[in-house]
Amino acid sequence: MEEYMKRALKLAEKGWGYTNPNPLVGAVIVKNGKIIGEGYHEYFGGPHAEVNALKNAVEDVKGSTMFVTLEPCSHYGKTPPCVEEIIKSGIKRVYIAMEDPNPKVSGNGIKRLKEAGIEVQVGMMEKEARKLNEIFVKYITTKIPFVILKSAMSIDGKIACYNGNSKWITNEKSRKFAHKIRGRVSAIMVGVNTVIKDNPMLTTRLEGYKSPVRIIVDSRGRTPLASNVIRDKAAKTIIATTELMPNSVRKKLEDMDIEVIILKNDNGKVPLKELMIKLGERGIDSVLIEGGGTLNWSALKEGIVDKVMFFISPRIVGGENALTPVEGIGFSNIENSIELKNIEIDRIDDDILITAYVRK
Amino acid sequence: MEEYMKRALKLAEKGWGYTNPNPLVGAVIVKNGKIIGEGYHEYFGGPHAEVNALKNAVEDVKGSTMFVTLEPCSHYGKTPPCVEEIIKSGIKRVYIAMEDPNPKVSGNGIKRLKEAGIEVQVGMMEKEARKLNEIFVKYITTKIPFVILKSAMSIDGKIACYNGNSKWITNEKSRKFAHKIRGRVSAIMVGVNTVIKDNPMLTTRLEGYKSPVRIIVDSRGRTPLASNVIRDKAAKTIIATTELMPNSVRKKLEDMDIEVIILKNDNGKVPLKELMIKLGERGIDSVLIEGGGTLNWSALKEGIVDKVMFFISPRIVGGENALTPVEGIGFSNIENSIELKNIEIDRIDDDILITAYVRK
Repeated sequence: MEEYMKRALKLAEKGWGYTNPNPLVGAVIVKNGKIIGEGYHEYFGGPHAEVNALKNAVEDVKGSTMFVTLEPCSHYGKTPPCVEEIIKSGIKRVYIAMEDPNPKVSGNGIKRLKEAGIEVQVGMMEKEARKLNEIFVKYITTKIPFVILKSAMSIDGKIACYNGNSKWITNEKSRKFAHKIRGRVSAIMVGVNTVIKDNPMLTTRLEGYKSPVRIIVDSRGRTPLASNVIRDKAAKTIIATTELMPNSVRKKLEDMDIEVIILKNDNGKVPLKELMIKLGERGIDSVLIEGGGTLNWSALKEGIVDKVMFFISPRIVGGENALTPVEGIGFSNIENSIELKNIEIDRIDDDILITAYVRK
Repeated sequence: MEEYMKRALKLAEKGWGYTNPNPLVGAVIVKNGKIIGEGYHEYFGGPHAEVNALKNAVEDVKGSTMFVTLEPCSHYGKTPPCVEEIIKSGIKRVYIAMEDPNPKVSGNGIKRLKEAGIEVQVGMMEKEARKLNEIFVKYITTKIPFVILKSAMSIDGKIACYNGNSKWITNEKSRKFAHKIRGRVSAIMVGVNTVIKDNPMLTTRLEGYKSPVRIIVDSRGRTPLASNVIRDKAAKTIIATTELMPNSVRKKLEDMDIEVIILKNDNGKVPLKELMIKLGERGIDSVLIEGGGTLNWSALKEGIVDKVMFFISPRIVGGENALTPVEGIGFSNIENSIELKNIEIDRIDDDILITAYVRK
């Protein structure tokens, strides 16, 4: 029966980039060993997966079984509660991959279904379901965004040549995939040095995907007013700074419709933990860090990073002064360095993608 | 039938570390769908795989089929020619994975077998056989050693913390495997800075394996006379230097039974291509470079490296001054950087081993 849940998870993924800060959810209705209805949560504010599956059913769903990747909701939000729709439909049995991680409502949907006499099973492919909604799970339980640190490097650990040349370390397919991740997250974050050196757009150059909010970490207000992240209006830009930013600069930025978040100066740096809280308050559920080595080090050192994605190209760049993915001062011994877990390795043609999670 | 050749390749591997500069060879004799004899080339100077398989046969081999990973020899070397033994034995058919790469004798064995009325097939699992004997294939055809560059690093490309601390980046199993490679190669090469900083033994700490010759690249003769590589006599040490080494130092080293190879000073460096020729002349078929970033860069830049092995630990060390696997000046643009091919990825518990070959 896992094939039905697998199918539901596959459907859920179709919402990638459109549902946040809501979760990705898929649902499949099965009767006499045949799928008679499918649906997924297509976009934020739109109908839920269960309702779409019921709507799309090609037969009477009475007596059938539903497979859904997340506990159906029992409360009135943007849409009426799914559990009532399920109960009304005459569905007999519901398989749920995982409970709603929102502590305020977790278990309520299941309870309501059971009360209505529906047979409920929880936990089928729970691991996969949790991974699919790792952003949602963290954000709904902590109100702190899920942070992904992404870097593209040569196999000898260089993100650019000694002179800054970095075009292109990884292959086209890898870069396209990186844009797909941009299309999913609520925000993308870089350091001001990256803006000054590369003047990037930081938009999602992939048809059908939105661009995330751009966050520039800039403790002193050095972001050039003529830079793309300031001038280009395809995405919102936030400058995260400290009281070290001159008021005149702040005024100019705000006049240009740039949001400025001022935080307490932490040894000349923007306190990233505080910044994550502020971003969470603004509904930002996820941040993709595409920083240089300095910002990456600060983010890792301050413990805000949940997941890392290293795109590794099978080439050797060399250079004692070449740039590396994580710089700053660094750890003074190996034992205290940051350990990663749940390591996954994918091949993207000749490139290698290593995905892992920070052991906290 | 490939299962028999696979078995022969497996047997061949058992000679790992004992046959060089001879190849690894395995042989299997099959009669009525049953293996009746197996053998491999066990140690340099010892009987060849074919002879061992014949000797170990538990039934009369008349009319049987032999699977052998390398073309049987037809000349008198340390042992009598295998082809004559095969012909005498009454074997009817011989499957050979690859021809002898030695241009002087290549094809002779096959010809002799055919002349004797034995059915011969060449090329079964040739790719695997060539890989197994990649060291032998290069050395026998060029007299230049096959060079493997090995490095152990964190996922962010650091081989040590900013202060030099590097114990231990990779896990025990990875380090053990690295010692197994030392046990196979004829020589291990490091730069003098590694000797000064770490004072390593550079021996194979693995039961049953010999230690390779130690080669210290030291253009000016700075190797401390009290260092382990000089004092320890568990393995031979060669100092590769230039005329920049003072004669007094050379004299002292030679008095301590250290071989000194003097090459033409190349901008203050030892010319590595020349060094490889000299080592090849001394019967060294393979060199494992376990250098720091400076020696690794020189070796890659000069084009002496055939294969790279990067052991990557899933941890982040950070540090703009931390040591990286390939330093020197580095390439000035990505397009001119060294490309790798035939990339293989293995997991060693949580560590990742990336093996690849330099695209020449």
